[in-house]
Amino acid sequence: MTEQQTYNAPTIEQEIDVISTYRLEEAASKVVPKGGFDYISGGSGKEFTLQRNDEAWLSKGILPRVLADVENPDTSTKIFEHDLKVPFIMAPIAAHGLAHATKEAGTAKGISEFGGTIMSISAYSGATFEEIDAGLNGNPRWFQIYMSKDEEMNKNILDEAKADGATAIILTADATLSGNRERDLENKFVYPFGMPIVSRYLTGSGENMSLNNIYAQSKQKIEPADVKFIAEYSGLPVFVKGVQTPEDAVLAIGAGAAGIWVSNHGGRQLDNAPGSFEVLAEISEAVAGRVPIVFDSGVRRGEHIFKALASGADIIALGRPVLFGLALGGWKGVKSVLEYFETDLKRVMQLAGTQTIEDVKHARLYDMKK
Amino acid sequence: MTEQQTYNAPTIEQEIDVISTYRLEEAASKVVPKGGFDYISGGSGKEFTLQRNDEAWLSKGILPRVLADVENPDTSTKIFEHDLKVPFIMAPIAAHGLAHATKEAGTAKGISEFGGTIMSISAYSGATFEEIDAGLNGNPRWFQIYMSKDEEMNKNILDEAKADGATAIILTADATLSGNRERDLENKFVYPFGMPIVSRYLTGSGENMSLNNIYAQSKQKIEPADVKFIAEYSGLPVFVKGVQTPEDAVLAIGAGAAGIWVSNHGGRQLDNAPGSFEVLAEISEAVAGRVPIVFDSGVRRGEHIFKALASGADIIALGRPVLFGLALGGWKGVKSVLEYFETDLKRVMQLAGTQTIEDVKHARLYDMKK
Amino acid sequence: MTEQQTYNAPTIEQEIDVISTYRLEEAASKVVPKGGFDYISGGSGKEFTLQRNDEAWLSKGILPRVLADVENPDTSTKIFEHDLKVPFIMAPIAAHGLAHATKEAGTAKGISEFGGTIMSISAYSGATFEEIDAGLNGNPRWFQIYMSKDEEMNKNILDEAKADGATAIILTADATLSGNRERDLENKFVYPFGMPIVSRYLTGSGENMSLNNIYAQSKQKIEPADVKFIAEYSGLPVFVKGVQTPEDAVLAIGAGAAGIWVSNHGGRQLDNAPGSFEVLAEISEAVAGRVPIVFDSGVRRGEHIFKALASGADIIALGRPVLFGLALGGWKGVKSVLEYFETDLKRVMQLAGTQTIEDVKHARLYDMKK
Amino acid sequence: MTEQQTYNAPTIEQEIDVISTYRLEEAASKVVPKGGFDYISGGSGKEFTLQRNDEAWLSKGILPRVLADVENPDTSTKIFEHDLKVPFIMAPIAAHGLAHATKEAGTAKGISEFGGTIMSISAYSGATFEEIDAGLNGNPRWFQIYMSKDEEMNKNILDEAKADGATAIILTADATLSGNRERDLENKFVYPFGMPIVSRYLTGSGENMSLNNIYAQSKQKIEPADVKFIAEYSGLPVFVKGVQTPEDAVLAIGAGAAGIWVSNHGGRQLDNAPGSFEVLAEISEAVAGRVPIVFDSGVRRGEHIFKALASGADIIALGRPVLFGLALGGWKGVKSVLEYFETDLKRVMQLAGTQTIEDVKHARLYDMKK
Repeated sequence: MTEQQTYNAPTIEQEIDVISTYRLEEAASKVVPKGGFDYISGGSGKEFTLQRNDEAWLSKGILPRVLADVENPDTSTKIFEHDLKVPFIMAPIAAHGLAHATKEAGTAKGISEFGGTIMSISAYSGATFEEIDAGLNGNPRWFQIYMSKDEEMNKNILDEAKADGATAIILTADATLSGNRERDLENKFVYPFGMPIVSRYLTGSGENMSLNNIYAQSKQKIEPADVKFIAEYSGLPVFVKGVQTPEDAVLAIGAGAAGIWVSNHGGRQLDNAPGSFEVLAEISEAVAGRVPIVFDSGVRRGEHIFKALASGADIIALGRPVLFGLALGGWKGVKSVLEYFETDLKRVMQLAGTQTIEDVKHARLYDMKK
Repeated sequence: MTEQQTYNAPTIEQEIDVISTYRLEEAASKVVPKGGFDYISGGSGKEFTLQRNDEAWLSKGILPRVLADVENPDTSTKIFEHDLKVPFIMAPIAAHGLAHATKEAGTAKGISEFGGTIMSISAYSGATFEEIDAGLNGNPRWFQIYMSKDEEMNKNILDEAKADGATAIILTADATLSGNRERDLENKFVYPFGMPIVSRYLTGSGENMSLNNIYAQSKQKIEPADVKFIAEYSGLPVFVKGVQTPEDAVLAIGAGAAGIWVSNHGGRQLDNAPGSFEVLAEISEAVAGRVPIVFDSGVRRGEHIFKALASGADIIALGRPVLFGLALGGWKGVKSVLEYFETDLKRVMQLAGTQTIEDVKHARLYDMKK
Repeated sequence: MTEQQTYNAPTIEQEIDVISTYRLEEAASKVVPKGGFDYISGGSGKEFTLQRNDEAWLSKGILPRVLADVENPDTSTKIFEHDLKVPFIMAPIAAHGLAHATKEAGTAKGISEFGGTIMSISAYSGATFEEIDAGLNGNPRWFQIYMSKDEEMNKNILDEAKADGATAIILTADATLSGNRERDLENKFVYPFGMPIVSRYLTGSGENMSLNNIYAQSKQKIEPADVKFIAEYSGLPVFVKGVQTPEDAVLAIGAGAAGIWVSNHGGRQLDNAPGSFEVLAEISEAVAGRVPIVFDSGVRRGEHIFKALASGADIIALGRPVLFGLALGGWKGVKSVLEYFETDLKRVMQLAGTQTIEDVKHARLYDMKK
Repeated sequence: MTEQQTYNAPTIEQEIDVISTYRLEEAASKVVPKGGFDYISGGSGKEFTLQRNDEAWLSKGILPRVLADVENPDTSTKIFEHDLKVPFIMAPIAAHGLAHATKEAGTAKGISEFGGTIMSISAYSGATFEEIDAGLNGNPRWFQIYMSKDEEMNKNILDEAKADGATAIILTADATLSGNRERDLENKFVYPFGMPIVSRYLTGSGENMSLNNIYAQSKQKIEPADVKFIAEYSGLPVFVKGVQTPEDAVLAIGAGAAGIWVSNHGGRQLDNAPGSFEVLAEISEAVAGRVPIVFDSGVRRGEHIFKALASGADIIALGRPVLFGLALGGWKGVKSVLEYFETDLKRVMQLAGTQTIEDVKHARLYDMKK
């Protein structure tokens, strides 16, 4: 029996009408099998941090500016060698096949059709590099790595990612073992299909394995030397992903990180951690412009992108909302979601009196707690 | 098929018993067609700012004063050449025809029958100046403009407003495109009737057009020069409406504004903006008495009027509650709502130990967050 | 038709088992006619201040003290010439007949049977002095006055109260007109029986009159001179009741008040006022021990009495909970409620390591908001 | 009729699958008789402090640390002469027989099978020392005392506890009478079985007696001299349990306490007290390392243990969750619960980048209220 027979992921391909990504989540819950939906949307523990990621946005308000002479705001920006038409990219997220039968290839096609942004490929992809490439069609991509305990395996994976055209490596450092995902425990969730990229270092293909099991077989002892190793071995810029403290940002930069990726893994790892947006400004102060900052965890609206940019982020990474689009419309749904974010961000920029992303970065936010 | 056939606005005319305007909203939801009701009562995005407008009032308490020798408080005040019997006026609000078949003419008649206050006529009125005049019956009026991209059109509209007797122009500057009104998107809401005042610069009459479409055809690039243009061309005092920052207040005054209109468009434009009352005091400090301040967004009770006056507002503008009165009782319902606010304000003034509006302006509010 | 026929107040007399006074309120709602119950339990406006009175208690925590050598705490205290066995008394509250057919006489008997405390008689009593006297049976009493616009009437009432044995006069100064009691408006509530004490200055007996009507016929212009007048004319100590600001406390003392009565009328007058407990400490600082402070509004537990005493109050006045006891058990229910408060206060005193009321007044409260 | 006939405590013995201890409570509510369940899970008054114990954890966040080179964290620690494999022990809690027919002996066996921790035996145990010993099987134990008014009785009990092998005495000082347990009052709860350890000083065996009754027969006047007496007479280290203020911590140490036990009795005594975790840091500052600190009240997750250790606690005591495990699986359920806490703590330590308990104690928590 293959996973496609036992796990009935959606297969529909259609443009979708995005009123809000919260509504997408609600709609996706009706078409994605429960085990998969809970895995995608759930957090760890009592989901305090998951919820705090959302609530943290409310700590800062956006101020309408009304005499700013703005029209048709320009959302373009740049990171490393890439000119982007929007300041957001695809976050690395495991197992897109839970959301749609086309797996990561579907997401990749939606991204390349939208254009002007970057696909992050997760080491826990259910699709092979080749399958993803077909969808990406030459679109820029970054590769996210979960390290093996075996250094040769890591070299092997990095070689392959580089050969595939990755222009940066994302080292996920906040998931050396699985968060306390109560929904998965309750569902006795196991991946219904294999993970071709990391299966080389797993006992098993990934299929029918729990997240706990897979993480346990990955490397726990992540330290600055790992950053250095990846940077030197790959020759590519390395992001350390999962940074939530100024201390770790400084450590990462000291170890040669070319970028800081502020994230709490979407509230899926350490519950009772602060909301990711809460800690962004202080990390940005510590980074002090030395390297770019990518931000994720909790981004659901144009207002959120605006606030993250105004608090020190250079690029925003989108995760779950894109997967909900994938579930509801395949690659066309992915494209619809990206278009929604672009439209929503432009509207917010107009109403906040900001013509460019640079203007957004200098916008004053309002302290809603004072 | 005309709009009156497809959109069944209420037609009843009766005095109404106003226990609270929150109850009016509930009652109006039962008689106004859903598309129209959601348009009137809804906000943008997750309606955070809509809700915050209401919650913001709770940040300040009113202190009972009990030995203040007050009896039958005097609510009269003055703005420009107008002596008012109450410190509140009608806010400009589009498309009254959604609430009642008599459209803006019904509101106008309710206002003139109440007397001693000012009607603001919206550029997005569904009634013509002539129709409104019949209701106003000589009552003072201000005109609110959404600018066209075509300067001649703007002159033309200003000429007409002035000829109609407007004694001030309100430049709405916070709506250069539509907020993210999810309820309207869900309802696929379009205006069921035309907008005779601005239809001259629209492709179409307004009828069966969405708000997004109409705003897109208006001028986006609003700047200080527009304030100056309107003031000079019309020779009338100009309010800049939609101010939520001290910065914009200062810009507006510098450009010749005769008044600042603090508003976040009732939470209908930029969601995640602070509550309008939250920002009033700091704007008032920046204005420093140079020009009068009109305040709107979230006013539902006499206590709210009291708090806004005590925080720097000179005049309060009422929007939705008046439309709910219109829906429930036509012009008589409008009059009932205005009488409710007058009675409620007098009661609050008495219990807070304030004899005059000047006393209210000097009342100490209590910091409920300390 | 008499009020007893149209308004069926409870008549049962029994001891009641008080687990909490919140449960009493729930139980009373089932036996008291709706109009009367809503009048007794409701507040003004959106009942924000009513609720805040309850929530304000949570701003301060009581600290357990565990090595304090306490046993069987002593709740006795003294005010003016009265030795009290507990630091709480009966608040003046109108129209006890809404709760029980025995009216104020029932409450009075419950109080005298409990003993060691003081009855406050409201000018809006539904019973005559004589009827109340029968229940009080020599128990000390204070008289609360709503002033007439006619000075002779006031003298006449004061004469009568004094003749009845009142040892202090409570001038209610925060109710020169009725708060915005939406429940009463909805119920079209009128008093089902007369008010013999004030009927001399009313047009009508009080029966079938609304609170708005009755207040409107009372004196609005209360000022320091009224305090002085009452003190001089009666020769009795005068409390100014309804004080919520240091400013009014100072004014009252300056005018000859012998005590300050901190109250917001149980959240029934100016809605959006702070919780009564919130303002107690700053008023106590302003009073600086010159005169005693009575506190009411929101007291439902022994913990509340403790916190009020530790924040500057000398005596706590109980209102609604006693009326709920009256409704559920007549005079025996009143006694049960008073016994509950005594027991609960003793328990709190023991657990907080305080042997005497003086110890309580010096207890450190914990700032729950820090 | 014996208690076993009238009170049907669960008898099942099985390992249990602990997803969260909150779910255990829900499950236990279905198998434990209502009177017993409410006694175990309930708090005093409106259960404000009970709830605050849980909410207080949210005031501090745990920061993910991602380059910390951690693997398989070490949870071992030491208190007095005991090497522990985990930093948590069993709290003294009365009447385990309410949860399971094996009473304290079941809990004891679960603890000894888990190993590497300490059992606290409550003076209100429903089992005899001998019965508990059978389960403990040589495992270390501490004895918790409620003092008699009769000094000889106290000596007698201490002699017996010492003979039983207790290595420390826990003086519970915050329960000189019962908190206001409304659920027990509503249920008219009495203990369905005797309390062999304290029955020597009770009028009655404890069976069919209320908590109020039992506490009333214990000593109320606890003071520093009692600490001194117990320490000198027993020659054992003495904890003062129930400390919630720096003042009492200092008093206790001055009287010879060998440890401070920070607890508010699980929210069962003085309602309106702050959450126990709220006051921990300031007590820890006052203790300044002179004696170890045990912490209880509200610990339900590994995150809580982490936060308490990082705020000054040396050892965490677990109460209710263990009893829920006992109810659901007898001694095997107890062991499952302890294993859950061990696993959960290790996961949190890994994700927070802490290798040892010493690392945890030095971890920086995040102020979630700023």
